[in-house]
Amino acid sequence: MKAEDLVSISKIVEIIKEKRSFLVTSHIYPDGDAIGSVVGLSKAITLLGKKSYPYISDRIPEQFLKLPGATEIKNRWEGTEIDVAFVLDASNLERIGDVYKVLPSIVINIDHHPDNTYFGNINLVIPTSSSTSEVVFNLVNNLVTDREVATALYYGLISDTGGFMYNNTTNETFEAAAKMIEAGVSAGEVAMELFYSIPYELMCIYIDILKNIKIDKVSRLAWGLIPLEIMEDKIFQNNTSTLLDMILRISEVDTIVLIKEHKDKFRASLRSKNADVGSIARLLGGGGHRGAAAFDLPKSDDIIIETIEKIKNLLGGRT
Amino acid sequence: MKAEDLVSISKIVEIIKEKRSFLVTSHIYPDGDAIGSVVGLSKAITLLGKKSYPYISDRIPEQFLKLPGATEIKNRWEGTEIDVAFVLDASNLERIGDVYKVLPSIVINIDHHPDNTYFGNINLVIPTSSSTSEVVFNLVNNLVTDREVATALYYGLISDTGGFMYNNTTNETFEAAAKMIEAGVSAGEVAMELFYSIPYELMCIYIDILKNIKIDKVSRLAWGLIPLEIMEDKIFQNNTSTLLDMILRISEVDTIVLIKEHKDKFRASLRSKNADVGSIARLLGGGGHRGAAAFDLPKSDDIIIETIEKIKNLLGGRT
Repeated sequence: MKAEDLVSISKIVEIIKEKRSFLVTSHIYPDGDAIGSVVGLSKAITLLGKKSYPYISDRIPEQFLKLPGATEIKNRWEGTEIDVAFVLDASNLERIGDVYKVLPSIVINIDHHPDNTYFGNINLVIPTSSSTSEVVFNLVNNLVTDREVATALYYGLISDTGGFMYNNTTNETFEAAAKMIEAGVSAGEVAMELFYSIPYELMCIYIDILKNIKIDKVSRLAWGLIPLEIMEDKIFQNNTSTLLDMILRISEVDTIVLIKEHKDKFRASLRSKNADVGSIARLLGGGGHRGAAAFDLPKSDDIIIETIEKIKNLLGGRT
Repeated sequence: MKAEDLVSISKIVEIIKEKRSFLVTSHIYPDGDAIGSVVGLSKAITLLGKKSYPYISDRIPEQFLKLPGATEIKNRWEGTEIDVAFVLDASNLERIGDVYKVLPSIVINIDHHPDNTYFGNINLVIPTSSSTSEVVFNLVNNLVTDREVATALYYGLISDTGGFMYNNTTNETFEAAAKMIEAGVSAGEVAMELFYSIPYELMCIYIDILKNIKIDKVSRLAWGLIPLEIMEDKIFQNNTSTLLDMILRISEVDTIVLIKEHKDKFRASLRSKNADVGSIARLLGGGGHRGAAAFDLPKSDDIIIETIEKIKNLLGGRT
């Protein structure tokens, strides 16, 4: 860890000790890292005898509600008095939704996205970390050792590394994981909850989508469409991380675009083993990481084919 | 690590230093841990300036041949003079096939199976280790730091832990993984080779099998049959670990039995999230771990239904 990060950590520890009430929030469309880091940090603050308000301005997807503590995340503001806000896993303040309006004067920005805008009064941004949960663990591990805190952060860690399979997995990721296990985490149990609990009905939907994907062997791009009726299926619930992962397991596929039909737009989710889909998404008006990104499209008949052609070309010049 | 294990390690280190030529072998039906540990130990011995003969009395499945060094494993004996044999990942000597006949007088047994019979002159058997590769890493890490050695052992480690998702994953597993990354392993690259390179044609075969599995909701048992024509398909090549893993991801499924049709027999592969399929397999004439096991069945019309009923009953009383 860099000297400046250690300075930020000690400043943050001071503020936690000094102040009384803390908002802990993250980005809309929350993923496992957003939810794990919010639950973990919030629980740690509570264990230190302080008031914590975990809050995300969006619905928590069903699959993440099994994480102990995830159901305590609020998404309706109750006018609570707050001394300090922790904003986790968000590159910029536009990503956090409505909670933006109630931020107090002290904002602590903890993240691992390389495009973070350093919007906080204190910024602990470590782009070499696998996940925000890994950064939060390195912060709270100085203050408190607790199984529930470590479990939430382990959840975020394996969520953002695809179970230690993505390129963002480093020796420091494994060292953090080892300490989390020592704090009482069951690696098997968390993995079972996160990766091994897909309802059979949902697996059948995945199989149907998987059977209909198109693969372009030149650009190594796979793409598929998820029509509105599947998107609105209660079982499906926009739960595509496992589906994306299954498609990436195909050797002919390097990059995948899943185009999800919403009522008012298409939303394209990108994943890639090698290409920088973050910069592709930014060119197309969206954003994200190197390996996982997304952008929106207006609903029209030709736009999907046009967009797939654009991405093929971008991949051609890029990989 | 126990004191007796440390004593065994120092004895083994002495023997490696004293002797000149080493056979390194493992069990038939080799899996990622068998192959990773053989390649890793063999390479380490070579780097120490000694002669090493990696040998497995069986075909190496295609999927494992991408591991650098795996193609050097012999399966035809050339009458080589050997001082010492390392037998890796094998509970007993019946498991190693024909190479049994040419073992020298010094046999070193390195394993993590709890039912190991301690058949060696020196036995380094650590049932709490995730994998034989983890045990071998703790041995060779004292002697040599090398990217290829660490990569082979990392390959075995993630193979036997299902990518750190099974219950055998401990803080020591993660500590070993951290050191392997420090030795130059790319976690992302190894995972891509092992888990993300399924030919699309094979994925389609998996999808067909997956669509036809039966699930018994009471015993939480899923079962499926792989007919001879698929078993003999060049793409399929008895490559079922990913398929088994995909089925285990279903929330209604705790245990899976895949019955593979061979020319002369059925072979049943079992995996489970919670049940001890090792003891079920032993009751049915086979063997294995708690989470992964197998047994053979004679070919007859009724035997599959009979066997599935037996397993349902055993699961009923067991989980």
